[in-house]
Amino acid sequence: MTIRTARREDCTQLRAVIQELADYEKMPDGPRITAEQLEKDGFGPHKFFHCEVAESDGQLLGFALYFFTYSTWEGKCVFMEDLYVQPDHRGKGIGTKLWKAVISAGLELECARCNWQCLDWNQSSIEFYERAGAANLSKAEGWLSFRMTREVMMAFVAK
Amino acid sequence: MTIRTARREDCTQLRAVIQELADYEKMPDGPRITAEQLEKDGFGPHKFFHCEVAESDGQLLGFALYFFTYSTWEGKCVFMEDLYVQPDHRGKGIGTKLWKAVISAGLELECARCNWQCLDWNQSSIEFYERAGAANLSKAEGWLSFRMTREVMMAFVAK
Repeated sequence: MTIRTARREDCTQLRAVIQELADYEKMPDGPRITAEQLEKDGFGPHKFFHCEVAESDGQLLGFALYFFTYSTWEGKCVFMEDLYVQPDHRGKGIGTKLWKAVISAGLELECARCNWQCLDWNQSSIEFYERAGAANLSKAEGWLSFRMTREVMMAFVAK
Repeated sequence: MTIRTARREDCTQLRAVIQELADYEKMPDGPRITAEQLEKDGFGPHKFFHCEVAESDGQLLGFALYFFTYSTWEGKCVFMEDLYVQPDHRGKGIGTKLWKAVISAGLELECARCNWQCLDWNQSSIEFYERAGAANLSKAEGWLSFRMTREVMMAFVAK
């Protein structure tokens, strides 16, 4: 098993493991993305995301997808959008290795923070994160997440 | 009053209004950023953030700071990190204009979503967002926000 940076040709398998993650998150209808979109957005001239994968014999066992964000308090940050390891391959440290790859990329760019989100019912992940020293900001500071869909965005600017 | 894209020479005033926002958020010791850091990160060869400002007679009355993120479900997204209008200038639609500038930038790049966060005690802002059609994802789906500081990141990769 090797941890390596994702390549354009991983996108078909990457799309499949994104679906596995959505199923695990109990939101199977969530992913509307295509492999072609991932290829364009992650491996074109402007990289909207970066990705590390765990691979064994040509199979993706897991992935960590991230990008760089900005805090007006502390500057550059790395945001881990997804961290997923297939159920059969958990408990072997693969998730930690993928996560460390994200953190290392953040440290290399002199990021002040690593941020991510987790569903409140996912107690095993919450414990995994807290064991590593992460703070639950929703609990500690009361941050709530808001979203506008594209439809709402369009209606909002048209008003 | 005009809404315009921030320029490098705004960074000293921008640092001052970031402090005002932190004071309003009851976290006055939060901002450790300098005007020089904002100049380098937002106006150098790699733009880690974008910013729209509300200006009147050379004074910044408010700002909206944003960047582009990525959803593995829907693709490109715009994240509004800060939206702030000075107390004396509220109720005139300045916040809505700044917010619309962020949304427009997101729509131009074909973003599928606009995301942001808000503190749970900030009822007036929550109502302002919900009136515009935004969903509170922490309430609707149970998303919690986690963070590692740089010190924890360094300790984590060293383990």
